[in-house]
Amino acid sequence: MISKQLLKLKQAMEQQDIQAYIIPTSDFHDTETAADYFAARKYFSGFTGSAGVLVVLIDKAALWTDGRYFIQAENELKDSGIDLMKQGMEGTPSIEDYIIQNLKNGQTVAFDGRTIGLNDARKYKASFEQANLQLRVDVDLISENWENRPEMPHAQTFYYSEKYTGRTIGQKLEMVRKEMKENKANTYVITKIDEVAWLYNIRAKDIENVPLPMSYALVTTKEAMLYINQSRLDEVSRAKLEEAHVQICDYDQIYDDVLKQDGPVLLDPSTCNSRIAMSISKTLVETMSPIITLKAIKNEVELESTKWAHIKDGVAVTKFMYWLKQNIGQIEIDEMSASKKLTQFRAQQENYIEDSFTTIPAYKENAAMMHYHAKEGNCAKLKPEGLFLVDSGGHYFEGTTDITRTFVLGDITEEEKYWFTKAMRSHIRLAKAHFLYGCHGYNLDILSRGPLWDQDMDYQCGTGHGVGHLSNVHECPNGFRWRIVPERNDSCVLEEGMLQSNEPGVYIEGKLGVRHENEYVVVKGTKNFYGQFMEFECLTWVPFDSLGIDSSLMTKDEIEWYNWYQNECYNKLAFALNPEEKAWLKEICKPL
Amino acid sequence: MISKQLLKLKQAMEQQDIQAYIIPTSDFHDTETAADYFAARKYFSGFTGSAGVLVVLIDKAALWTDGRYFIQAENELKDSGIDLMKQGMEGTPSIEDYIIQNLKNGQTVAFDGRTIGLNDARKYKASFEQANLQLRVDVDLISENWENRPEMPHAQTFYYSEKYTGRTIGQKLEMVRKEMKENKANTYVITKIDEVAWLYNIRAKDIENVPLPMSYALVTTKEAMLYINQSRLDEVSRAKLEEAHVQICDYDQIYDDVLKQDGPVLLDPSTCNSRIAMSISKTLVETMSPIITLKAIKNEVELESTKWAHIKDGVAVTKFMYWLKQNIGQIEIDEMSASKKLTQFRAQQENYIEDSFTTIPAYKENAAMMHYHAKEGNCAKLKPEGLFLVDSGGHYFEGTTDITRTFVLGDITEEEKYWFTKAMRSHIRLAKAHFLYGCHGYNLDILSRGPLWDQDMDYQCGTGHGVGHLSNVHECPNGFRWRIVPERNDSCVLEEGMLQSNEPGVYIEGKLGVRHENEYVVVKGTKNFYGQFMEFECLTWVPFDSLGIDSSLMTKDEIEWYNWYQNECYNKLAFALNPEEKAWLKEICKPL
Repeated sequence: MISKQLLKLKQAMEQQDIQAYIIPTSDFHDTETAADYFAARKYFSGFTGSAGVLVVLIDKAALWTDGRYFIQAENELKDSGIDLMKQGMEGTPSIEDYIIQNLKNGQTVAFDGRTIGLNDARKYKASFEQANLQLRVDVDLISENWENRPEMPHAQTFYYSEKYTGRTIGQKLEMVRKEMKENKANTYVITKIDEVAWLYNIRAKDIENVPLPMSYALVTTKEAMLYINQSRLDEVSRAKLEEAHVQICDYDQIYDDVLKQDGPVLLDPSTCNSRIAMSISKTLVETMSPIITLKAIKNEVELESTKWAHIKDGVAVTKFMYWLKQNIGQIEIDEMSASKKLTQFRAQQENYIEDSFTTIPAYKENAAMMHYHAKEGNCAKLKPEGLFLVDSGGHYFEGTTDITRTFVLGDITEEEKYWFTKAMRSHIRLAKAHFLYGCHGYNLDILSRGPLWDQDMDYQCGTGHGVGHLSNVHECPNGFRWRIVPERNDSCVLEEGMLQSNEPGVYIEGKLGVRHENEYVVVKGTKNFYGQFMEFECLTWVPFDSLGIDSSLMTKDEIEWYNWYQNECYNKLAFALNPEEKAWLKEICKPL
Repeated sequence: MISKQLLKLKQAMEQQDIQAYIIPTSDFHDTETAADYFAARKYFSGFTGSAGVLVVLIDKAALWTDGRYFIQAENELKDSGIDLMKQGMEGTPSIEDYIIQNLKNGQTVAFDGRTIGLNDARKYKASFEQANLQLRVDVDLISENWENRPEMPHAQTFYYSEKYTGRTIGQKLEMVRKEMKENKANTYVITKIDEVAWLYNIRAKDIENVPLPMSYALVTTKEAMLYINQSRLDEVSRAKLEEAHVQICDYDQIYDDVLKQDGPVLLDPSTCNSRIAMSISKTLVETMSPIITLKAIKNEVELESTKWAHIKDGVAVTKFMYWLKQNIGQIEIDEMSASKKLTQFRAQQENYIEDSFTTIPAYKENAAMMHYHAKEGNCAKLKPEGLFLVDSGGHYFEGTTDITRTFVLGDITEEEKYWFTKAMRSHIRLAKAHFLYGCHGYNLDILSRGPLWDQDMDYQCGTGHGVGHLSNVHECPNGFRWRIVPERNDSCVLEEGMLQSNEPGVYIEGKLGVRHENEYVVVKGTKNFYGQFMEFECLTWVPFDSLGIDSSLMTKDEIEWYNWYQNECYNKLAFALNPEEKAWLKEICKPL
């Protein structure tokens, strides 16, 4: 039976003479995880997955989602009157085709352009115009028809000091204006919150695990504006912004202000909110947002800072590992309670803010599921046997961490040991690579993936991703992936100062999952006759669980790297451990 | 003092009111090695290197060449009045800038568009127009002013039978027209001789090592034309062409015929001769010439055929290896006499046509020079010590081979053994790779190059290139290279049936050079849940010289592959060897 939410929406559509309304899963800033305020697709459809697009027509509705969610969506949409459209399956129509087939000449399609990026909006526009349908990109049917809508995030901001960022707002504006000049642009529109936060050194706990305030920015050759709910701005940030001559404006005012700016206007069509982008009448300079690269290349202060964050995080995870090893089989532990314990260890560290994403604790065969989410009351109990994969990270004032360890909880099979070692080799082969300047992630990916490919297997995801600095834990434009996927924007040249994870794994359905993840920063190596060599400097220091290793499967070079790494872990972490933990660490870090 | 050749050319320029004339190093077909008939740059400048552009002005002249030839060009241009322009060095002007700086408003630049590709011609055009210079692209000042010009190649053609090509002319026309249809083109202009030869199954010994006749082709939806000196066409080819309704026209007639064809006209702007391309008034479809990919994907007949060519070639090279090992230190051998001996062994094989390129025999430190050419009377004598690199190949009716072996002539140093083994590992790591369908050469290159990079060294060239089928030994669009270099066009997806070399090396100036080269064909491997895996099947069978190997530097997997390969060499070659050779082969092929 059709829900009253949907019914209300359809009435609103009829009042405005709209025959199709598109509701994606996104906020106004193309944020990876949107706040509850923006969960309109969930509210109107009842489907709770993290990805999907709801299309509402007057007499029917349909929801598009991907393979991860087919079963869940089928359950949640049952009796809702909403049809499930399985993306990527043969016979599933595209959203455009579905709408075109169901509407008549001259009828109207609408969406709220704030929730759809320019590139996508243009694709819709082209299809609908060709089919003689009207398109309105500025229709908000959500606000008026959502009862008890969650509040717009409005946590107080805090200034992210130069002590951690290494650059004043003024210096960042200078860097940005230099890029604008090179792109021959007089105005730069910034709608992504991680980019605004980087530019103005501000942070806020608006979204869980994403310490970035809802905001926009405009930068011109002479002016700079921040658009934000002004009541939430802290004193220090306000003072720092004023000192840098940044005008502080109301959140929504950008929609008017952008119309008044000089062209050419630089914006990133893959992410820029289409309501803003399509309102601009000046010439556009469409390019990857220059802040993406400026932000990805960490400066010396950021690097020193994040190194300390990683030491603290390493202490927390190592203490957790010790706790796990001591208590497994002694007390009751399940995936969720282990996960909470880990957060407690992190929270004991100075300047801990929050976890950088929801910890993924996955025992035995659960770890084979790429999108496994343990739930309170519905998760595996840990026993003193098998492998336990934990992917987790923390936000500290000093930076953001992302680490996966696979723990040996007791007896493991030869097969578990074999794959544990295999994934370790993959990690090491990439970690110790030297490469000439100019390489992209796609040149290096096979170092990690190759050993699996050689056995006609794959881990079906990237080998690594860029990491933000007290920002998104997944960051563009660098990463490791063998295919160039333009929408992912993670195939850039690996530049000195870029930070990325190295996280190959082995996933065998119904059986086991192994992943070994560290973060590495790209550094300059030798410069000689052949050119500038680059290397990876490790940031993450937590011992790998040597009980999982069969060293007879490794090469001499790999064993040498492994022993060096374990020894360094002891050297770097021992200072913060108690005598029992230290003795145990010494043991786990001894050479193979 | 200015040569009388150049003087005559300048007089002709004045008569035609031309103030700058550009002479590149190319024929009318963008062939890798042009016949002597086209060596105008050499004739007018005196510079004999394989690459360079001569620009003649009324009162001066200059020659651009690259780093390989700076010393040679300085010597050869001495007192010629021609200035040397060192490409890639700071301060060297571009050809366009040089001309623009020396000419006045409204003056005229000219070249023979038959010798310059469309992309390059357009770049010249844009620069000169912006500088208010006239450009004429149809001026041949060469023919009339070159005394005793070598003859245009006109060897008799021969029909390259379906027994070796696996496809009739009719079938190939069908494949080509399908591509034209997909590209929405009604006419397809083919100016490269390897593409014409593939399409019409013809060959001829026009250029040394390049068995392809000077010719053009036009294909329309209904017609097909071959443009060639008709007197040279053999009976079989003529009959086969007529059978397939191909019109046989005079070589130069394409320049008129192309004007009469229907558009859109498909051509490859990176290679198409600009005199033809710029004369077309119809809409152009500019894309990589579809024949490039059709030709690169070898069919089953071609593969069976080339496998046999490689066995015969393997017998020849193995016999040479035995001869070398028996005679070194016993009789006088130098680089050139060894090279001749190798050609003799090849010539003993049935259906041998010629070498596929000039053999590169390089002893000890000579092998460190990437462009070393041994010369009669000026080459190294071989001694029973050190490493001897021989890069060579043959054209047989069954196909084309390309192989490098590095022979151990007697005592070698630990260092030589170390690098010999290092290069062997690089070769093996690529040879035994499995990879998911969709990979490009740039995904795999690091398998070979990585071990060198890890020591902050490089071999400064591609790891491998496509190979033709009784055609160019270097062929597009596949290969192994870490950078995507658009002009090289060797970064395509590796498709089943593509053939390429795997030839990593180590080059240490003044000391040694090692290279181990085999040819491999891409084949389908396992298809499973993860996708379609691809592998390499080896075509080349000549034992590596195990005396150069230090197996303690290799992994178990690498040793296993090596032993398998050596054993296969014995299995595949022994049948054609005499008892002494066979006994020796058994020994050299025994497991490490």
